[in-house]
Amino acid sequence: MVQDVQALVFDVFGTVVDWRQGVAREAAPFLARHGAAGANPAGFADSWRRRYSPAMEEVRSGRRPFTRLDVLHRENLEQILPGYGIDPARVPQAELDELNLAWHRLDPWPDSVAGLARLKARYIIAPLSNGNIRLMLDMAKRAGLPWDAILGAEVAQAYKPTPEAYLRTAEVLALRPGQVMLVAAHNGDLAAARRCGLRTAFIPRPTEHGPGQTTDLAPEQDWDVVARDMEDLASALGT
Amino acid sequence: MVQDVQALVFDVFGTVVDWRQGVAREAAPFLARHGAAGANPAGFADSWRRRYSPAMEEVRSGRRPFTRLDVLHRENLEQILPGYGIDPARVPQAELDELNLAWHRLDPWPDSVAGLARLKARYIIAPLSNGNIRLMLDMAKRAGLPWDAILGAEVAQAYKPTPEAYLRTAEVLALRPGQVMLVAAHNGDLAAARRCGLRTAFIPRPTEHGPGQTTDLAPEQDWDVVARDMEDLASALGT
Repeated sequence: MVQDVQALVFDVFGTVVDWRQGVAREAAPFLARHGAAGANPAGFADSWRRRYSPAMEEVRSGRRPFTRLDVLHRENLEQILPGYGIDPARVPQAELDELNLAWHRLDPWPDSVAGLARLKARYIIAPLSNGNIRLMLDMAKRAGLPWDAILGAEVAQAYKPTPEAYLRTAEVLALRPGQVMLVAAHNGDLAAARRCGLRTAFIPRPTEHGPGQTTDLAPEQDWDVVARDMEDLASALGT
Repeated sequence: MVQDVQALVFDVFGTVVDWRQGVAREAAPFLARHGAAGANPAGFADSWRRRYSPAMEEVRSGRRPFTRLDVLHRENLEQILPGYGIDPARVPQAELDELNLAWHRLDPWPDSVAGLARLKARYIIAPLSNGNIRLMLDMAKRAGLPWDAILGAEVAQAYKPTPEAYLRTAEVLALRPGQVMLVAAHNGDLAAARRCGLRTAFIPRPTEHGPGQTTDLAPEQDWDVVARDMEDLASALGT
């Protein structure tokens, strides 16, 4: 029962923060400096993000030991630059490191901080993101996300949607899976959490992938809660 | 140099919170209910705490896989009860579980919350405690400790003063050890951190062990900072 829920854990990229516009904002001056001023920064963000899941798949499959997302993002960055006419070997390493931190400086959706503050009054709230601890920490500190703790892939040593990512998070919280609810804008993440026994809340983020988004616009299962945004979720959960 | 420090990590039991009075407060009604009304609750807290380090030593030595502190505390509780004339097998399990949560409900020293809030404005702040994540989370949520993240033994999967506890914490923060400062009321903890390359700050807590305390009343090495309390530390670090 939803009444048993003691902790809310959150997908972050797309659900709590707008990664596409944030990465585009940081990439634009970099592209301009390196002769790619005509490139679309939002498209650059999309290209970078497209390598996200395949990179994690190396870890999920066991072909690679757990490697934190900052490292995968950095490798993925070097892989996409040639497509923009930029040779990563000719860019100072410190400049690539700095651009990689774009993921640490994403802005929350307008309702995220206020909704989380309301939810925190009644529930334990924590990210259950594939982003590593330092990434989530920097993001929270900059944006004022009021997490009670930073959980997720690095604490679990497993990437979503691997079951261990959800189950070890519940175990760290000393809760049964049914006492933990995943909040996400992605039906696939919720489906994986439900298979592990977690409760589920869906919030659509219809512009996560830009104005022409076609995915995750509506719930694909009867999730325990469906809310318009984080403030609406807080209302639905009585906070 | 202290100027390089980006993160402050804190010993918690004794340094940030007063475990002895907190455990005594919670133990008193339990002892009264079970026929030990004449027992000294602070002495009960001392007895419980005395089993803390030996229990962790099983893990440190490799004789036992990493086991979170809540489990060790629970085992230690059952071990000390007979000394108070209480047979743990005759106490409802739920009541023992509840008393075990005394460690989640400790009060901060009077300067802790204000000092941490000041330090948080300039530094990443996080516990580096042997307490597990849920324990630290509950304590912080109840007491208003404004951590940026909850690190420590469970994240590192190693108990202080094992070097891995300090080194893995720095690694999670993506910092060199010299960019991390341990704040502690215990010279031994600081000595272990220094051997790993961390910076060190000492705050005496002269009543941690009660009015007759004889240990850790003064710095035993030239720690990078010595402060009277958390507010004084904030001033010493320019926040």
